[in-house]
Amino acid sequence: MATDRTSGPAPLAMLVDALKRLPGVGVKSAQRMAYHLLQHDPHGARQLGQALTDAVQRLRHCARCNTFTESEICETCQSPRRDPALLCIVETPADQNMIEASHSYQGLYFVLMGRLSPLEGIGPREISFDRLLERAADGIVKEVILATNFTTEGETTAHYLAELLRARGLTVTRLARGVPAGSELEYVDAGTIAWALMDRRAS
Amino acid sequence: MATDRTSGPAPLAMLVDALKRLPGVGVKSAQRMAYHLLQHDPHGARQLGQALTDAVQRLRHCARCNTFTESEICETCQSPRRDPALLCIVETPADQNMIEASHSYQGLYFVLMGRLSPLEGIGPREISFDRLLERAADGIVKEVILATNFTTEGETTAHYLAELLRARGLTVTRLARGVPAGSELEYVDAGTIAWALMDRRAS
Repeated sequence: MATDRTSGPAPLAMLVDALKRLPGVGVKSAQRMAYHLLQHDPHGARQLGQALTDAVQRLRHCARCNTFTESEICETCQSPRRDPALLCIVETPADQNMIEASHSYQGLYFVLMGRLSPLEGIGPREISFDRLLERAADGIVKEVILATNFTTEGETTAHYLAELLRARGLTVTRLARGVPAGSELEYVDAGTIAWALMDRRAS
Repeated sequence: MATDRTSGPAPLAMLVDALKRLPGVGVKSAQRMAYHLLQHDPHGARQLGQALTDAVQRLRHCARCNTFTESEICETCQSPRRDPALLCIVETPADQNMIEASHSYQGLYFVLMGRLSPLEGIGPREISFDRLLERAADGIVKEVILATNFTTEGETTAHYLAELLRARGLTVTRLARGVPAGSELEYVDAGTIAWALMDRRAS
């Protein structure tokens, strides 16, 4: 097979190309990763290859909450200890993990696997809004907690969803905005202080 | 298989763990990569899995220059158009590609696949110094050009190699240090200006 001098033998060029598809990885990083794996960690390369094949084959979306799972319904959705009247909407499984780590939520989840981002061409059709609305309209869910990120895109997504869900008679809440636990006011940004003042509560 | 709630189903956790082995990738990036591949690019995931397996199986080190190749001897080392009296030493195949792209070198190469880094525990034994010395002592090589990076580690490697190679009667040179092509002196760092003054040449 002909090889391009600037990219080396074909299997190496193909590996660099495949690594470039990872988010945040450009050609230089992809090359560094390829050399590292081939030179110092061929075992890790085999392991990653196997893990990728396994994950794509074995994982699918939970029919209820949309997170990645090996079964039809994920463990959290199957749990009888969860309050089915509460539904928390997050962008990614990582966000769900953070909420679980707070040990202060016992309801169920819906994982959007993304957020609205008009600039990237991600609209309501690209996100599983239909499935979410269907899920929230099961007659058992009473309150939907919007826990998308507090970024522009996350806020846009939350506003959009709030309208859709309220129109269906559901109570819609959003995570509280305010001063982070343990922080000194001097080092908190002005926007956060403004929110904390606006949303101040009786103490 | 038991799954850890903070890391999701086993294939996902295994994928995140495997991605974390890539250089410069921490747990947050690994999660983002895994979600991206599973959600938006399962084809890319399969492709990367295959590319990793292929690369590890098919690539080996060129018996002469140590770069990655599918054959016993790489194309560059086999080329009759190359000057076998010149041997250029680089850290990685990417560095070799940059030198090739300059279209100003017609000799052969030796790729170290690393550099001395005492802080990371990488000494002469971890780098293929024995093979390099054997390669350089073939009786045909007259001049060895040290083209390791101009970082602390690259300079250390160059100094170390220069001593070993000079002791074997070879002419040892180093890439010129100086002001980069097309740059304005005002924006060049002081260290580079100092080198350019020290190595100034008749014009």
